[in-house]
Amino acid sequence: MTLVLPTYRDVAAAAGRLAGVAHETPVLTCESVNAATGATVFFKAENFQRTGSFKFRGAYNALAQLTPAQRQQGVITYSSGNHAQALAAAGRRLGVAVTVVMPQDAPAVKRAATEAYGAEVIPYDRATVRREVLGETLAAGRGLTLIPPYDHPWVIAGQGTAGRELCQQVADLDFVLVCCGGGGLLSGIALAVRALQPRCQVIGVEPAVADDATRSFYSGVLQQVENPDTLADGARSTCLGDYTFPLICQQVDGMVTVSETAILDAVMFLWTRLKVVVEPTGVLGAAALLTGQVAAAGRRVGVILSGGNADLPALARRLNGG
Amino acid sequence: MTLVLPTYRDVAAAAGRLAGVAHETPVLTCESVNAATGATVFFKAENFQRTGSFKFRGAYNALAQLTPAQRQQGVITYSSGNHAQALAAAGRRLGVAVTVVMPQDAPAVKRAATEAYGAEVIPYDRATVRREVLGETLAAGRGLTLIPPYDHPWVIAGQGTAGRELCQQVADLDFVLVCCGGGGLLSGIALAVRALQPRCQVIGVEPAVADDATRSFYSGVLQQVENPDTLADGARSTCLGDYTFPLICQQVDGMVTVSETAILDAVMFLWTRLKVVVEPTGVLGAAALLTGQVAAAGRRVGVILSGGNADLPALARRLNGG
Repeated sequence: MTLVLPTYRDVAAAAGRLAGVAHETPVLTCESVNAATGATVFFKAENFQRTGSFKFRGAYNALAQLTPAQRQQGVITYSSGNHAQALAAAGRRLGVAVTVVMPQDAPAVKRAATEAYGAEVIPYDRATVRREVLGETLAAGRGLTLIPPYDHPWVIAGQGTAGRELCQQVADLDFVLVCCGGGGLLSGIALAVRALQPRCQVIGVEPAVADDATRSFYSGVLQQVENPDTLADGARSTCLGDYTFPLICQQVDGMVTVSETAILDAVMFLWTRLKVVVEPTGVLGAAALLTGQVAAAGRRVGVILSGGNADLPALARRLNGG
Repeated sequence: MTLVLPTYRDVAAAAGRLAGVAHETPVLTCESVNAATGATVFFKAENFQRTGSFKFRGAYNALAQLTPAQRQQGVITYSSGNHAQALAAAGRRLGVAVTVVMPQDAPAVKRAATEAYGAEVIPYDRATVRREVLGETLAAGRGLTLIPPYDHPWVIAGQGTAGRELCQQVADLDFVLVCCGGGGLLSGIALAVRALQPRCQVIGVEPAVADDATRSFYSGVLQQVENPDTLADGARSTCLGDYTFPLICQQVDGMVTVSETAILDAVMFLWTRLKVVVEPTGVLGAAALLTGQVAAAGRRVGVILSGGNADLPALARRLNGG
């Protein structure tokens, strides 16, 4: 099967669907960040997006393209995180029933948030069941359309609208730093930046302990990582996907990694200096900047803050050395 | 001595001095807050102001009005909190030397932040020294101009620009909820709102355990509170001042109080829903709204988030029941 990769045209079309629905999130600047880095830094605050992360963009863009029959039947996904909430919220707006396959040991607060948007949650045992298989089985059995969390052209194009907005809000960027889990956000943003600010480099950022995409990018061969022990729960995915791997190889300029300490430090830095709550996955780009992983001095740097759904009690325990 | 109270003309003049210097802070909205309260709520995010709180407005407005000789000599204040940092930052911008009298047991991070802006910090022993007396003595001895943290017409007028901005950003407000410590912010905002949206009610909010201004407002007689044990460290001031007491009596429509539990809950709510870091003093207005202290349903409500300089490790311990 030959995959047709999404292009910037798909991102632009997604922006049309999202206009007036998704928030145009603000770009934040901070003098102390500029002073500390020698750069001019623009934070794209997707933590202020609906449902608390960029995921709403891709989820809504996908549901908006279903046929009437598909809408009627409903959709399914597998996610214990931001995609679940985003798809549930998009489904509620569009009148599409949403089913979410979620590990039975997912935090109660995440299940509750997803159910609060009206989705049905089906728990499963992570030890014995692969979520992709369960999702596909249920989709087939119930006639539901599967909307995976990242490896889907509609999802990727939707996420790319965050990069399109940033390029429209800030001219002449030299770098954009983007966190990378499954690669949907990174792929989509790369498509947008290549089209709108071709001189700007797009750099993906991963936790050092979950560096499968970095290794895949530099080796050209898809690499995996199993259950990495990272604070950045959105970057624990095993590997890039059928769409995101080739897109990242073609469209992205580089990949870097950051330590767990750098992630926690960046969470705290954004908390104390920018006064914004960003979850550990969402600070990956900021962590790369603050630890000097890119040569930012004198440059105009965009940094995506991808989400704000932090597990605050857990972070608080970390802060106190727990 | 007859005091000449500031008026809205002073607030408007302050806005001219602050144009292009202070941030015009954003107004945040949140669907889940509107759903929970039945109101349309507009959060004025002064936690994003320079130095992390509204205090920069009053501090800069005061320093900008000094004579050349006074600027040359320098200024002094007493504060362990946001006013110290704000005055230090304003002094650095205007080339005015700033001295701050600070308790010797003030958190090291606050002293460091103040010194990082170039101010000289003079520690004192809270058990044996009254800060007002020490400040005035040093001012006289060194020829410094005293810029107190709230009870000064220039400071009050500067703080009022936050209310002026809110009235320009959001039309037809029914209520504005404002935290109250020494009353500088509340007085200034009341002046602005009375002038620009006279139909809008201005409500001050205090911690229940530090309710001196509420008792003063309703009794018409200045009341005090000694070392109240409240999370809202900006509301621990003993009493309203010579300027702020009459202004609040004349310009404010009501005062309400909130419990310590409501304060902590509001910090967490803003953290988790708005993804913004607001310090305990800064959430007083939000706490009043969220606990139903004002009849907000169906109304357009402005809420001042006054600052974001939260002591995160301490809050983290509270979150974990410490």
